[in-house]
Amino acid sequence: MEALELILRPIGYVRHDYDDEYVRKSPCGVDGVIEILPEYAEGLRELDGFSHIIVVAYLHKVDERGRRVLKIRHRGLANIGIKIDDIPEVGVFASDSPHRPNPIALSIVRLVSIDMNKLYVSGLDLFSGTPVLDIKPYDAGRSVKGYSVPWWSKVLEERVREKFGDLCLPRGL
Amino acid sequence: MEALELILRPIGYVRHDYDDEYVRKSPCGVDGVIEILPEYAEGLRELDGFSHIIVVAYLHKVDERGRRVLKIRHRGLANIGIKIDDIPEVGVFASDSPHRPNPIALSIVRLVSIDMNKLYVSGLDLFSGTPVLDIKPYDAGRSVKGYSVPWWSKVLEERVREKFGDLCLPRGL
Repeated sequence: MEALELILRPIGYVRHDYDDEYVRKSPCGVDGVIEILPEYAEGLRELDGFSHIIVVAYLHKVDERGRRVLKIRHRGLANIGIKIDDIPEVGVFASDSPHRPNPIALSIVRLVSIDMNKLYVSGLDLFSGTPVLDIKPYDAGRSVKGYSVPWWSKVLEERVREKFGDLCLPRGL
Repeated sequence: MEALELILRPIGYVRHDYDDEYVRKSPCGVDGVIEILPEYAEGLRELDGFSHIIVVAYLHKVDERGRRVLKIRHRGLANIGIKIDDIPEVGVFASDSPHRPNPIALSIVRLVSIDMNKLYVSGLDLFSGTPVLDIKPYDAGRSVKGYSVPWWSKVLEERVREKFGDLCLPRGL
């Protein structure tokens, strides 16, 4: 079973004019377009009306070495000035690190408007050119009431909040 | 670019003793185990302490025909007795249907306990044997405040709530 390969195909791509470094250093993400391939555009029917969507993306710039990483320090947060020295090393499955065996991102973004097969969004933390695997609406089923997190996750959240406010919390925690 | 194939490998599998039909008809999901392959177990460090996790799974029982579906009626909800006649046909990207071009599920489940490479969870809406692609913690970055949904999604949510209460809302909306 271990050797099983699952094959997926992009349904679209992320498009914007920012370079990777700019995206990496934008705690609130950037504005951009999710361009759905024309053959899948019918799948967008009734998506307007949702304020937020979940973009399931394949992080194509993560190389074989990145896919072998199993434990991380929160360096992405250190890059935007968040103190991480007292935060433990954590497993990739306890983090939102792009480095992980299957480099899949779940990016929750604001859906600003739709024009045919183009989704105009804000709050994107994905590089331009990133293949998109799936789009799901953010609805009541995604919003867990009364969830809890370990102490170190709470500390990171507070530090992000202190520095950037509430507006753009969903980045790289 | 359209022909690009992205190759992913399971990091583990869903295990429980319920048959598919039972899972399909359980609005609150079932108890079960996510068994992570031993070579990835290190990636689970510090995951305990999170009350909920997101299981990114590959719905291996969706066939080629299911992957060609682009619009759906909410038949999964009809199966558990929810009225759907007045709800519009919607695109798969505006729904949580298993039928979609890349049959990826995001299942938010309660993390009950961890024993080595086994995650004991509740609220699973996945069949036994389902390959797991990734695990992510449910943290502040996943919880959107002040999101909004279209009228038909609100109506479905209310009907699920009326029938099953608040306890197990995150199923098949």
